[in-house]
Amino acid sequence: MKEIIVKCPGTVANLVCGFDILGLALNEPSDIMEVKLLDEPKVIIHNRDAYNLPTDPERNVAGVVFLSVMEKVGGNIGFEVTIEKHIKPGSGIGSSAASAAGAAVAANHLLGNRFSSDEVVQFAMNGEKLASGVKHADNIAPCILGGISLIRSIHPLDIVSIPSPDLFVTVIHPQIEVRTSDARQILKQQVLLKDAIRQWGNIAGLVTGFMKNDLDLVGRSLEDVIIEPVRSILIPGFDEVKRKCKEAGALGGGISGSGPSVFMLSRDEPTARNVESVMKEVYTRIGIDFYTYVTTINKKGVEVVEKQV
Amino acid sequence: MKEIIVKCPGTVANLVCGFDILGLALNEPSDIMEVKLLDEPKVIIHNRDAYNLPTDPERNVAGVVFLSVMEKVGGNIGFEVTIEKHIKPGSGIGSSAASAAGAAVAANHLLGNRFSSDEVVQFAMNGEKLASGVKHADNIAPCILGGISLIRSIHPLDIVSIPSPDLFVTVIHPQIEVRTSDARQILKQQVLLKDAIRQWGNIAGLVTGFMKNDLDLVGRSLEDVIIEPVRSILIPGFDEVKRKCKEAGALGGGISGSGPSVFMLSRDEPTARNVESVMKEVYTRIGIDFYTYVTTINKKGVEVVEKQV
Repeated sequence: MKEIIVKCPGTVANLVCGFDILGLALNEPSDIMEVKLLDEPKVIIHNRDAYNLPTDPERNVAGVVFLSVMEKVGGNIGFEVTIEKHIKPGSGIGSSAASAAGAAVAANHLLGNRFSSDEVVQFAMNGEKLASGVKHADNIAPCILGGISLIRSIHPLDIVSIPSPDLFVTVIHPQIEVRTSDARQILKQQVLLKDAIRQWGNIAGLVTGFMKNDLDLVGRSLEDVIIEPVRSILIPGFDEVKRKCKEAGALGGGISGSGPSVFMLSRDEPTARNVESVMKEVYTRIGIDFYTYVTTINKKGVEVVEKQV
Repeated sequence: MKEIIVKCPGTVANLVCGFDILGLALNEPSDIMEVKLLDEPKVIIHNRDAYNLPTDPERNVAGVVFLSVMEKVGGNIGFEVTIEKHIKPGSGIGSSAASAAGAAVAANHLLGNRFSSDEVVQFAMNGEKLASGVKHADNIAPCILGGISLIRSIHPLDIVSIPSPDLFVTVIHPQIEVRTSDARQILKQQVLLKDAIRQWGNIAGLVTGFMKNDLDLVGRSLEDVIIEPVRSILIPGFDEVKRKCKEAGALGGGISGSGPSVFMLSRDEPTARNVESVMKEVYTRIGIDFYTYVTTINKKGVEVVEKQV
């Protein structure tokens, strides 16, 4: 019986001006999943954490992914998984994507890597759909591939890896709930053309800055005139945190995914640590509990860390 | 008395999905301007072409640029210019931008290159404002700098050069009039968020494709779901030309500037020539006169080609 352990990184999607199209992978936090290939068509899920996620495969993000792989492959195969979550569900740093991506990568590995990376992303997207109601890939793709991913298009799927500079990422997860569906609902269906133009100037600047390793340009381009002004009202203290983090030297940042986590990019670790202090200070004063992470961009994506045959 | 000759390239602005933010310079056609520095505060304009453009400095694109330089510098300086236009006014390939950029670069050169390239762009934008009523830079910047320019922002001015692959460009200028102001007026002030997202995915893909020299990605990203569907109705035969050019091997393309010229990018010269044949065939059948150009991306921008001191 084949068994592997996969390490699945947290991710930041909706990268400021890159709403729905740009995401990056983090070195911290990450989930651990132990996955066995079974010789009968069933999915068994164990949780080794305190989050009480459903163990019914049809209601579990990883479960749905395994089922979709089984449907594709057919025959007498199944999966048993033990999930150890460190990425808190609802944090906005890709908790469900980590489970979905981990399941897809693990299943593919156990089946002899028979699927292309696009196919693995497609399997994982089935899990994301269960979690958020929408098939999106801006957490899934960086989680699987590492680094910064551009999802140029979902139909047809077109994922492009963007060479990423060695940036530090500070994340604060204030302990409030922002439901992805709510965060989507408050967005306006229409936007001003002039705002859209400003946004696509920033997107082009951000991608160019990443690829040229021009961090001043990255900083200037980290501006979202469309989504952030609407969604940030769901996150107490957002404007203050952002302003103070930039004063503390952050290149810029914004809402991670649909929140409530907020992330900031910095050139170096001391700055990223200063940014963390500023974030903690604001939320301590406001009186909202939080977790923080100071980490770097994960360039590997989901890792298979141990095998037993 | 100092005198120089400058060669000012035509440009393609509104580069498909890069409306208002991306432009590229062409090796053909280009204007020639002979410019002398005078020791009295006046601007003298001669035309050496058949376009009968105004020679009153306040009503001439180059004149306005010279006047703005003189206002900045002060003292007893002026300019005498002879303009030989090869970029037909109203063609949509940056005729006014060439005059404006040529005047700004020439003036700066004659004054000992005392201004930064951003300042030179700013001077030239005064000329563009006279021509189109709007201060935009997506023709000016590539005309001055060469290659592909991103105008991330106009206020403040933020111009970024995008490394450009060696692409061939086919341009057809159908002899119809599309006024820039009309082309602007028919645009909707509001766009669907989902279209804007698709557009910024394409922008990011296009820039990444240029920088990675991934021409398949460039081709997939050359899609404009916002401006082209509206503006293309002003250009007879547009949809047919575009479809047939892509069938003939073009990576893609669209309306140049606000039209009526249509441009297509190709990997190599034979393809670019096939694309030209296809364009000619369609407009011959429709019965609209045209000019065509098969050229490459100009990587130098405005050139000072001869000096006499």
